[in-house]
Amino acid sequence: QLSTDVRTVTLIPGDGIGPEISAAVQKIFSAAEVPIAWEEVDVTPVKGPDGKFGIPPAAIESVNRNGIGLKGPLMTPVGKGHRSLNLAIRKEFNLYANVRPCRSVEGYETLYRDVDVVTIRENTEGEYSGIEHEIVDGVVQSIKLITEPASRRVAEYAFQYARSNGRSKVTAVHKANIMRMSDGLFLRCCRETAEKNPDIKFEEKYLDTVCLNMVQDPSQYDVLVMPNLYGDILSDLCAGLVGGLGLTPSGNIGEGGAVFESVHGTAPDIAGLDKANPTALLLSAVMMLRYMDMHKHASVIEQACFETIKEGNFRTGDLGGSAKCSEFTDEICRKISDS
Amino acid sequence: QLSTDVRTVTLIPGDGIGPEISAAVQKIFSAAEVPIAWEEVDVTPVKGPDGKFGIPPAAIESVNRNGIGLKGPLMTPVGKGHRSLNLAIRKEFNLYANVRPCRSVEGYETLYRDVDVVTIRENTEGEYSGIEHEIVDGVVQSIKLITEPASRRVAEYAFQYARSNGRSKVTAVHKANIMRMSDGLFLRCCRETAEKNPDIKFEEKYLDTVCLNMVQDPSQYDVLVMPNLYGDILSDLCAGLVGGLGLTPSGNIGEGGAVFESVHGTAPDIAGLDKANPTALLLSAVMMLRYMDMHKHASVIEQACFETIKEGNFRTGDLGGSAKCSEFTDEICRKISDS
Ligand SMILES: CC(C)[C@H](C(=O)O)[C@@H](O)C(=O)O
Ligand SMILES: CC(C)[C@H](C(=O)O)[C@@H](O)C(=O)O
Repeated sequence: QLSTDVRTVTLIPGDGIGPEISAAVQKIFSAAEVPIAWEEVDVTPVKGPDGKFGIPPAAIESVNRNGIGLKGPLMTPVGKGHRSLNLAIRKEFNLYANVRPCRSVEGYETLYRDVDVVTIRENTEGEYSGIEHEIVDGVVQSIKLITEPASRRVAEYAFQYARSNGRSKVTAVHKANIMRMSDGLFLRCCRETAEKNPDIKFEEKYLDTVCLNMVQDPSQYDVLVMPNLYGDILSDLCAGLVGGLGLTPSGNIGEGGAVFESVHGTAPDIAGLDKANPTALLLSAVMMLRYMDMHKHASVIEQACFETIKEGNFRTGDLGGSAKCSEFTDEICRKISDS
Repeated sequence: QLSTDVRTVTLIPGDGIGPEISAAVQKIFSAAEVPIAWEEVDVTPVKGPDGKFGIPPAAIESVNRNGIGLKGPLMTPVGKGHRSLNLAIRKEFNLYANVRPCRSVEGYETLYRDVDVVTIRENTEGEYSGIEHEIVDGVVQSIKLITEPASRRVAEYAFQYARSNGRSKVTAVHKANIMRMSDGLFLRCCRETAEKNPDIKFEEKYLDTVCLNMVQDPSQYDVLVMPNLYGDILSDLCAGLVGGLGLTPSGNIGEGGAVFESVHGTAPDIAGLDKANPTALLLSAVMMLRYMDMHKHASVIEQACFETIKEGNFRTGDLGGSAKCSEFTDEICRKISDS
């Protein structure tokens, strides 16, 4: 498939600020003449024939057909029994690896410089198994489920990701000193995968140690791979080092496709006010382009985005500026047209 | 009991650098004329009548008799089936709350200033239940066990700690959006305890959010209470903000007593070389004195320790200096004698 062919991508704009940041990404993609057609779908849960609420069939078909999606933030419906829609999507499409690169954004100062780490999180099981029971009143068990296929699959993805992104080290993050069997299995899969990938350095670290090291000197880490919950935590920690979830992209990689998403909230307080920062969704869309082998478009857009932030004249409120979402977007489009 | 009565404290010097940092603490306590007698015990596991290895009965009796212990770092014996001795001690004495204050150390620069948070960790169950099984080959379940009594007990301790330490807020840290039943129960216990303690502010936060916030602005937190593993992670993260585990104390509080410990490693590479930094164990001993209501002695020692670090002439290698453990210790003793 030539990159000039138009490819269709499923777009899930999301709730709250989702629609406006999605529109911003679409506008920027148009300015960059990315050969993509958007297929917008609504994922508001509908009642199925079994009486349970779930993602509408049309949305599922769209992602399955296109094999690729971009997704804004989704609210979790209120009320007992509703699980996070964000999670439902990862599960529905068996998106087994959640990839979150965290890099310092030039010109946007934090306490840290030159952060450049990627967390790769097992995305389908672990502490997110959803299996819990109350044995007797006041005694609850939650089950952390670790399987060999899922552990191996995400470990392999981590090494493959490291290699194809010019990275030199993979760190497996675990608490196998405590959860000897479950994290032990995860770790064993990482070790075995490491042996098959001798060109990439491998190390193993306790999760608590990584948290401690990460706030002292993040430069010692490169690509990190870990069970579900650890990835949830560590990816947010790393995002914090570079400025928060408004600046970091995320991709959910599956066997049959991938869904890229911004992982910040829906920010209902500023929804519809043209104040939102579309950067995280835009950088997620850039990751998507790289995944689709559209590297040139990816670089042009990424560069325009980072330059705009660096110059500082069109920063949104969350970055200390007063620009509107549309002004920030237009400036990125301008830079793309000029380039 | 008058504070001039001599009280006996069980001392577990520990492995690696344990003996030398324990000796340092003893020397400093002598200089400060703390009315404490040390009862040193060995906790090297011995084979019991049931054929299993465990803490020697004499050590258990000593802690039970004295109700208070100070403990250096312990190595986990090598070999399958050996669980961490550090954990065994927490379990043996039902030390249900692990308290770790993290405060910026004046004169020792990190990226953060004025950090002052306390993590309170449920110390007996949760992800540390030790219950795991391999259902079929390659499918492992680890059980996270959350009970109402343990959750309530640690929540109550957190509010009581906040009040008696002049602190104004308790944050419950959880992932009840994912582990709805287990973390849900923990959270419910915190909420109910909060209602009974209206003089202390209460808030609830997701663990991932706390990690993100903590590296951006730790000043928004005060006392934090959480299940076992979350505390393991967050306490290390917070220690990282102020300079690492060599500078932060820890106390394990039970119903019948308490054991205070430094939570850094045994540092076998420098063991016996008079290079270790005794600060974490000394500050743990200071926490112990406060627990024993020996506030004056606690303050004198704490001040001498912090002043020595601040002046900077007698810093050990881990803090960028070249002082020996004994030189650092002697300087603290000198300051105490002068005061
Ligand atoms: C929204 C929430 C369920 C989700 C998670 O816990 O995975 C989020 O924190 C994330 O990291 O994407
Ligand atoms: C040594 C290890 C078992 C322990 C833990 O995981 O609790 C340590 O990390 C700690 O925090 O005291």
